[in-house]
Amino acid sequence: MAVAGPEIERLIQLLARLPGLGPRSARRAALHLIAKREQLLSPLAEAMKTAQDRIRTCTDCGSVDTRDPCTLCADPRRDASTIVVVETVGDLWALERAQATRGLYHVLGGSLSPLDGIGPDDLRLAGLVARVAAGGVQEVVLAVNATVDGQTTAHYITDLLTPYAVRVTRLAHGVPVGGELDYLDDGTLAAAMRQRTAF
Amino acid sequence: MAVAGPEIERLIQLLARLPGLGPRSARRAALHLIAKREQLLSPLAEAMKTAQDRIRTCTDCGSVDTRDPCTLCADPRRDASTIVVVETVGDLWALERAQATRGLYHVLGGSLSPLDGIGPDDLRLAGLVARVAAGGVQEVVLAVNATVDGQTTAHYITDLLTPYAVRVTRLAHGVPVGGELDYLDDGTLAAAMRQRTAF
Repeated sequence: MAVAGPEIERLIQLLARLPGLGPRSARRAALHLIAKREQLLSPLAEAMKTAQDRIRTCTDCGSVDTRDPCTLCADPRRDASTIVVVETVGDLWALERAQATRGLYHVLGGSLSPLDGIGPDDLRLAGLVARVAAGGVQEVVLAVNATVDGQTTAHYITDLLTPYAVRVTRLAHGVPVGGELDYLDDGTLAAAMRQRTAF
Repeated sequence: MAVAGPEIERLIQLLARLPGLGPRSARRAALHLIAKREQLLSPLAEAMKTAQDRIRTCTDCGSVDTRDPCTLCADPRRDASTIVVVETVGDLWALERAQATRGLYHVLGGSLSPLDGIGPDDLRLAGLVARVAAGGVQEVVLAVNATVDGQTTAHYITDLLTPYAVRVTRLAHGVPVGGELDYLDDGTLAAAMRQRTAF
């Protein structure tokens, strides 16, 4: 269809590549942007330009920010004795949203996955070992996904950190808050029972 | 939460204002954009800048395009004797996608809605009458929504066009293609029965 110039078509096609937007909602988003040229299209174009120019990866933890070291690594109020290891920046953001920890983070950039050809050299593992070796770290929390790849990665990291005097922990398995037992899988239920706590 | 610089927060907030994206999916979209800086963030920022600079409203039909008159109005292969009246540019795009007509369009920019304070002066009605008065138009198809406001607008336009020798038609009501009778409302079923056609 050529209802409008190629510039609009291109805008729609690019929007459709965002996660959560399909071809139809990308068209709706494009129309919305065009209708709100001053209030939304212009600021968004600006914000993207700024992001593109200024975003960098934190050399300490691997998170993304407009400064390096990132806001979290540079914050003196964070507890530098705890490093929470996550697979992706999205996981880091989720933990921060939940205010789950006051520690620092380390973003691996994925998980070990032989099937996808992702080996130890593709993850930010050397940086993690270096941070632990530098001293001052008492606990490393492995907040990786509860998937096969995530758990493989957790075991690998545990082995890597064996030489160092550091406590390696992982997130608890159990019933999600607000969750109903009837809808939970057997593995989660069994783990929740095994790791039951005093009431 | 201040996990990253204010520039990233601002990008997320602006993305969350797109239809179809909530706060959570906006964060995911922002991460996706940041991860694909070269392939997506940069071209999208560019496309938005271009759209912002070049998009204008067609003085003939009211559609949006990077040229005026728009691609459709300027296309000599379109049938200028038929004008399809729609409420929004989104409706125009939907009809074009369905290849429902070879005629030209006229975008009203909404529908009459006393409750929302939208009167005849807020719609592109004078332009429609001027196009019909200029001659050469044989049929005006009222492709407005089948809502109360849409139908009110249709009646109003019919009255406006009475002085001119032009056939005013509207879209058929009926069973959606692929639709199941059991799930249809009574009004649609009754209309489909009334307007039944020879098999």
